[in-house]
Amino acid sequence: MIYGYDPRTGEPVGEGWPESDARHVDAVVSAAAAAGESWRATPAAERARTLEAVAEALTAHVDELWALADRETALGEARLRGEVARAAGQFRLFAQVIRDGGYLEAIIDHADPSLTPPRPDVRRMKHPLPGVVAVFAASNFPFAFSVSGGDTASALAAGCPVVVKAHPAHPGTSERVAEVIRTALPDPALLDLVHGMAAGKDLVQHPLVVAAGFTGSVPGGKAVQALIAERETPIPFFGELGSVNPVVVLPSADRSQLASGFAASLTLGAGQFCTNPGLVFVPEDPGLLKELAAAVEAATGGPMLASRIRDGYLNGLERLGGLQVLAEGRAGEGAWAVAPKVFTVDLATFAEGLPHLAEECFGPASVVVTYRDVADLPGVLARLDGSLTATVHATDPAEAASVVPVLRRTAGRLIWNGWPTGVAVCWAMHHGGPWPASTSAHTSVGATAVDRWLAPAAYQDWPAELLPDELKDDNPLGIPRRVDGRLAG
Amino acid sequence: MIYGYDPRTGEPVGEGWPESDARHVDAVVSAAAAAGESWRATPAAERARTLEAVAEALTAHVDELWALADRETALGEARLRGEVARAAGQFRLFAQVIRDGGYLEAIIDHADPSLTPPRPDVRRMKHPLPGVVAVFAASNFPFAFSVSGGDTASALAAGCPVVVKAHPAHPGTSERVAEVIRTALPDPALLDLVHGMAAGKDLVQHPLVVAAGFTGSVPGGKAVQALIAERETPIPFFGELGSVNPVVVLPSADRSQLASGFAASLTLGAGQFCTNPGLVFVPEDPGLLKELAAAVEAATGGPMLASRIRDGYLNGLERLGGLQVLAEGRAGEGAWAVAPKVFTVDLATFAEGLPHLAEECFGPASVVVTYRDVADLPGVLARLDGSLTATVHATDPAEAASVVPVLRRTAGRLIWNGWPTGVAVCWAMHHGGPWPASTSAHTSVGATAVDRWLAPAAYQDWPAELLPDELKDDNPLGIPRRVDGRLAG
Repeated sequence: MIYGYDPRTGEPVGEGWPESDARHVDAVVSAAAAAGESWRATPAAERARTLEAVAEALTAHVDELWALADRETALGEARLRGEVARAAGQFRLFAQVIRDGGYLEAIIDHADPSLTPPRPDVRRMKHPLPGVVAVFAASNFPFAFSVSGGDTASALAAGCPVVVKAHPAHPGTSERVAEVIRTALPDPALLDLVHGMAAGKDLVQHPLVVAAGFTGSVPGGKAVQALIAERETPIPFFGELGSVNPVVVLPSADRSQLASGFAASLTLGAGQFCTNPGLVFVPEDPGLLKELAAAVEAATGGPMLASRIRDGYLNGLERLGGLQVLAEGRAGEGAWAVAPKVFTVDLATFAEGLPHLAEECFGPASVVVTYRDVADLPGVLARLDGSLTATVHATDPAEAASVVPVLRRTAGRLIWNGWPTGVAVCWAMHHGGPWPASTSAHTSVGATAVDRWLAPAAYQDWPAELLPDELKDDNPLGIPRRVDGRLAG
Repeated sequence: MIYGYDPRTGEPVGEGWPESDARHVDAVVSAAAAAGESWRATPAAERARTLEAVAEALTAHVDELWALADRETALGEARLRGEVARAAGQFRLFAQVIRDGGYLEAIIDHADPSLTPPRPDVRRMKHPLPGVVAVFAASNFPFAFSVSGGDTASALAAGCPVVVKAHPAHPGTSERVAEVIRTALPDPALLDLVHGMAAGKDLVQHPLVVAAGFTGSVPGGKAVQALIAERETPIPFFGELGSVNPVVVLPSADRSQLASGFAASLTLGAGQFCTNPGLVFVPEDPGLLKELAAAVEAATGGPMLASRIRDGYLNGLERLGGLQVLAEGRAGEGAWAVAPKVFTVDLATFAEGLPHLAEECFGPASVVVTYRDVADLPGVLARLDGSLTATVHATDPAEAASVVPVLRRTAGRLIWNGWPTGVAVCWAMHHGGPWPASTSAHTSVGATAVDRWLAPAAYQDWPAELLPDELKDDNPLGIPRRVDGRLAG
């Protein structure tokens, strides 16, 4: 049985959920695949209406959902209400995306008999992957990266049914969210859940599963990748794994809100963000270090989502234990509450301690690295593993010239004078980055997240009556296309 | 030493080429990576001019190049001149692609402080992968899928330097083509070669290599994939592996040129095409079978590219040896010449013999499967592995309704009343398909082949003076972009 636990008390919440055995996984995946047949053939406009209905259903149940999730996560009302709104917003964005139709990348090249060799009529567009998308839910966003998260929303938008391997840190929330979403779907089998580690294995190895989305740790992601490698037919694996999110404070930076901004970003959600600022480079300046220390000392961590996650954080602190402690904050209330803790080290010593000093410590921990000369930064930054984000604090853009090219290779999102926590859900967002931040060049947040569940096909000299509407000459759906080399919106 | 051989005589051609040792591979990759630093920063318009200069250089050397390649491949003047033209055409297409700029998928979302939470300014575009692209050349297209092939052209277009693992079937051609291309490059280190199996391993495992393109067999592709899996940092592998390219002849098909079209497609280039029609479904009709048999008997195979490829073909014929022989053509002249051979089997027996009866036999071999009822086809077609193409012959589109959905899942390109050999190089082409046709959802031919060597990055609240030109508000390069959700050409 899988039990949810209250992080405030460490006690189980409500009834447990049976682990899904292989037969159950097979039944769920097969039913999803069958339901997917008509879903993928459903016109985009109708799929968009369904996604909006899901958004409405989530919004209508927010009172019940936040309270349920709060018992299993202790993330609090404001954050959890906001997260339901965000999850609903993601479904709405993907409704816009598929109505727009640009995501299909439709291209038409008419025949050209004057060429050598003569060119046939060739038309290309993307189609949903032919089968079920497996989603491994994250612990830290019980709505926005879980059953109702971006992976589910983008896969349903693409035209794929979804089976989620529920995160054991919030099984009750997962079940209820699935029920709520299903009320808005034309066929409830389009979204289902499985519970337990073994079910996760059975899920990614099921022949009807065509792709997997994953948000979690590097070892977890590697384990899923290894299971996929055992398949007879490989499938794409879209993992969003670890990230330290380097922040570079340059000498010209405005320091007025630097310390408070850092402490807030560090402790948001008890530090349980994949975009947590785990590494901060600052000029060697005792005054600045004092400000940072004071802000962290005044900050509170809070209960982590699970005892296992708490233990992982404490182990991570031990790994960094050789460094000088800059500041430690308060743990706050709760059985699994932890305090924020910040270490400090000079740049040369940090460079000697790579790569292990730059490993992610999931939770409210960070390493503040002091440097004397900006010119020393690029060589060290170039040695960091891939991250989801990299941030620069400066008032003088010219001062950043030497670090920006290095950071661009390190991270999928570059931030100016901000903090990495908080990921806007919009067309341009990219939430990915070089390995291990991501296992692919794709994003798991924002409009282009839908690309993961699509594959192109070309039609050569294909009869008009058999062409998809998206590729017919008169463009009945009015979607953007490239025709004979020219974009036509 | 690696020697090229004349397929007409089986004798070595000219001097041999030393196998590249690990030091050489490291030197070549490091030099390419260094040269890539300024190449990736070169404006697209200038990169486009370079690609056009490469096309001109290839064209200017066609007399020399086709003759050189003919000695190593015996593919003949017409085919080889055409292939140089095609290779040059690919460089020209990618020049158009990067001038157009749509391939960067630039997106701008301006800040919106009215949202909850307020949205920052977010801008996204694709950048070249930060390092060297490794290309494994194919045997069967000494220009169009080798050193001067689509992988090289698209990677250089993206902004990446290239190191090719030369195919041992045409080492001399490979060296000379590289020399010719280099005369047009701003830095000769942007394109280099290595020779030998061990060098291929060193190449894909080199830390500065960021992606690999591969055209070849399923076992070869699996071997490269396994080498990549040993890397500390995974890299994407774009393999185009095996394909049987099913052709479905429906009862309404126009039979007037069916047999001649089949025999021509089957024996083109001695059957050494990844789009060779290896599987043909026809109505049970002794008259039609006789026509097919007569056309194949009148056809000539020719010398294969290498003794190892010839041996592979003969082994493949043995694997199919349990089937009835429908027809065998003439081998023609040459030490490694082979005859086209076509087997026949009824649909039920074929279905029992899956999957092995549908394995690719690289060369001029095909299996003609006879069916009684169109309704029996979808169930069998659904069991085929992925292919690059699937073809339907019919005069009545309605007759194809039941097979088209199945074929769309089987293949990356659907062809109506044609033959799969011949791949138009254009914006809409898709040369890929479900595994093992391809290891990814990408194409290796056509404009979108450039997508393989790119990864997106987002810029949040980034100062205008540090933004790439492609993302500046006034769009100085005039590229297509999506701004606040709307496409602006």
